[in-house]
Amino acid sequence: MATTVMSVAEICAGAKRASRELARTGSDVRNAALCAIAGALLARSAEILEANALDLEAGREAGLSSALLDRLALDARRIAGIVAGVRAIVALPDPVGEVIDGFRRPNGLEIRKVLVPLGVIAVVYEARPNVTIDAAALCLKSGNAIVLRGSSSAVHSNAILSQVAAEAASGAGIPDGAITLVQGGGREELVELATQAASLDLIIPRGGEGLKNALAEHATVPVIYAASGNCHIYVDAAADLELARRVVVNAKVQRPGVCNAAETLLVHSAIAAEFLPAVARELEQAGVELRGDDRARRFARPVELEQASAQDWDSEYLALILAVAVVDSLDVAVEHIAAHGTGHSEAIITRDHAAARAFQHTVDAACIYVNASTRFTDGGEFGMGAEIGNSTQKLHARGPIGLRELCAFKYLIEGDGQLRS
Amino acid sequence: MATTVMSVAEICAGAKRASRELARTGSDVRNAALCAIAGALLARSAEILEANALDLEAGREAGLSSALLDRLALDARRIAGIVAGVRAIVALPDPVGEVIDGFRRPNGLEIRKVLVPLGVIAVVYEARPNVTIDAAALCLKSGNAIVLRGSSSAVHSNAILSQVAAEAASGAGIPDGAITLVQGGGREELVELATQAASLDLIIPRGGEGLKNALAEHATVPVIYAASGNCHIYVDAAADLELARRVVVNAKVQRPGVCNAAETLLVHSAIAAEFLPAVARELEQAGVELRGDDRARRFARPVELEQASAQDWDSEYLALILAVAVVDSLDVAVEHIAAHGTGHSEAIITRDHAAARAFQHTVDAACIYVNASTRFTDGGEFGMGAEIGNSTQKLHARGPIGLRELCAFKYLIEGDGQLRS
Repeated sequence: MATTVMSVAEICAGAKRASRELARTGSDVRNAALCAIAGALLARSAEILEANALDLEAGREAGLSSALLDRLALDARRIAGIVAGVRAIVALPDPVGEVIDGFRRPNGLEIRKVLVPLGVIAVVYEARPNVTIDAAALCLKSGNAIVLRGSSSAVHSNAILSQVAAEAASGAGIPDGAITLVQGGGREELVELATQAASLDLIIPRGGEGLKNALAEHATVPVIYAASGNCHIYVDAAADLELARRVVVNAKVQRPGVCNAAETLLVHSAIAAEFLPAVARELEQAGVELRGDDRARRFARPVELEQASAQDWDSEYLALILAVAVVDSLDVAVEHIAAHGTGHSEAIITRDHAAARAFQHTVDAACIYVNASTRFTDGGEFGMGAEIGNSTQKLHARGPIGLRELCAFKYLIEGDGQLRS
Repeated sequence: MATTVMSVAEICAGAKRASRELARTGSDVRNAALCAIAGALLARSAEILEANALDLEAGREAGLSSALLDRLALDARRIAGIVAGVRAIVALPDPVGEVIDGFRRPNGLEIRKVLVPLGVIAVVYEARPNVTIDAAALCLKSGNAIVLRGSSSAVHSNAILSQVAAEAASGAGIPDGAITLVQGGGREELVELATQAASLDLIIPRGGEGLKNALAEHATVPVIYAASGNCHIYVDAAADLELARRVVVNAKVQRPGVCNAAETLLVHSAIAAEFLPAVARELEQAGVELRGDDRARRFARPVELEQASAQDWDSEYLALILAVAVVDSLDVAVEHIAAHGTGHSEAIITRDHAAARAFQHTVDAACIYVNASTRFTDGGEFGMGAEIGNSTQKLHARGPIGLRELCAFKYLIEGDGQLRS
């Protein structure tokens, strides 16, 4: 592969060149290329599984945990899932060219604000090789060139997947260099990538805190961080307790390992005695470990809660653990969320219209729910189609990062000789 | 003043606290505070001019140029101009709460995407003390707390202006700490400010390259850079040459010291012999120094052009100087702009519909004009009201940074017990 002998800077510069041409392609060309990628993934499954077997073997030798080996593993079913994902992206509307604002000025100038591709997006990811194709497909759909940088544990899988995608795209009229992989999973390559501000328009990290910290330290390229989700559910004094119980259980149990799962339950003291024992029992039966403050432990009896420590309020467990605190007002709940939340997804359960409004207005987060599970913070659930991550930043993208969030805009202005006076 | 004894970190933390309360205030409170600021500026003009006199005296002693002293100077007329600017901001629509998208999902969830204040914005600026009030008014209008950091040459003027604004705002119900000034114009304070990521949501620099480079090196807070504007006008083979002449002269001459003024003229070779002598003569008569490539110099005869050097193509003159090149096609013009442009404002003059479309689609810039002067890239001219700068970045804000660009958004989701399955 050409990528093995090119420097990171050369790969990025090539992607920049490709991005200029790619930005001019029509939806039809980009969709045809996505279909070609889907077909090539199926046709070349044997090669892909062979490369994956090399990574799995190396991973076993290196003593990777069975959970990590599972994330790394591909099989026919998983390849079919990746292919289905690519085809779903084909079916999404093209964000490029969407007019998001427009007006005519008194002097006759007509101004349109139009979505355009960002240019070149680098996606830095860990373990799961399916991200190679998911990310490449979203970038291609939105007219962006992509520079992929996976982890060393998936080096063979990522290499063949990106090669299959690049070759299929190239055969369908996408410029060479629009999909490339940086080889070498070391810190040096990461720093080099993070400083290619002349070529890269955005870096999206998909990985743990170590990766994010390394980027925060070195990046001169803009980065959209998908920070962790320490999500809260506040059960108000005026809550429908039956509804509250269902939402809390869903938000904690349905898929605990994801960023939009609930990590802390805040219960108003007026209904804590009635609410806590029932919800605590159901959570306990679902295998959830509960860690409460003093009042939560008292109100939850006869269910026994562990004693919460100070750090529980700041923990994103991503596991079947829930911190529980009793609060005396909505204001205290909001203060707790301001102090400990990560700005991801926060929910209030209430029948009180004023309380719902106050919570939505005063909590500072990407997604604020009234009477629904935090688990809906997701590009698919929002109707945006696939997402490449979830932003907890405030600039550019907040919440699900879908196709439109992979775009910039430009103003197109039409006149007939207007002069400034 | 309290600010003289507080550290930069304390000021920023105080602004963060104030911003939470400020985000909940209604338009009426924020507008009343802006009116109070306008009134206080007039009522306390004597104090303001006294402080300004101290800066001017120190500036004269330090040997500041007369241009810099002029930028620093306030008088009754300039204060009246600042007051008029504040009152114009009162009259603008409130961006906070604007629903920019919204939809109902098949499961009944109702999702609104709503503009909210960013939180705390730091504005770092040089020389002109009027920025103190302009920036504070825009931030207050958009529900943001502001931390101001001016230059040491305007230390007395900025101190009294920010104090007048803060006191008037406070008297009108705006939380203390919403408008503050960092004292001390040194590098140390700048670095401390640029790393207050826990308190600051955005830094907007208004100053020279030295300031921007210092921020690029040290900032962990997001920064929106207003890069320079090396703006081009491309006169196509199919241009209306009379219209082209008027636009070129306007874009170069009307106000040469601003970022949306034209710096390079690209002329198609097919019309260069007809177009260049006339436009060159008119520019020359307007006092413009012309620097051409070989063909431009030949075509412009009998007007004499200086020989352009390689660095002319990359120069933002901000003065009555224009670089002129002859190109053989639209593609070459676009390539030139890609190589030398700064992504600010680019124009094509043409009667050819296909050429206009090709130029708009392939040039990568914030604002792309057809048959109009680049000088219209401005928040006021776009109908956005006042602006705090012009972004040449692609993320979040591109082009004029008005009130809506000082906002983030959040998703408000209403349900009746929806669970994820």
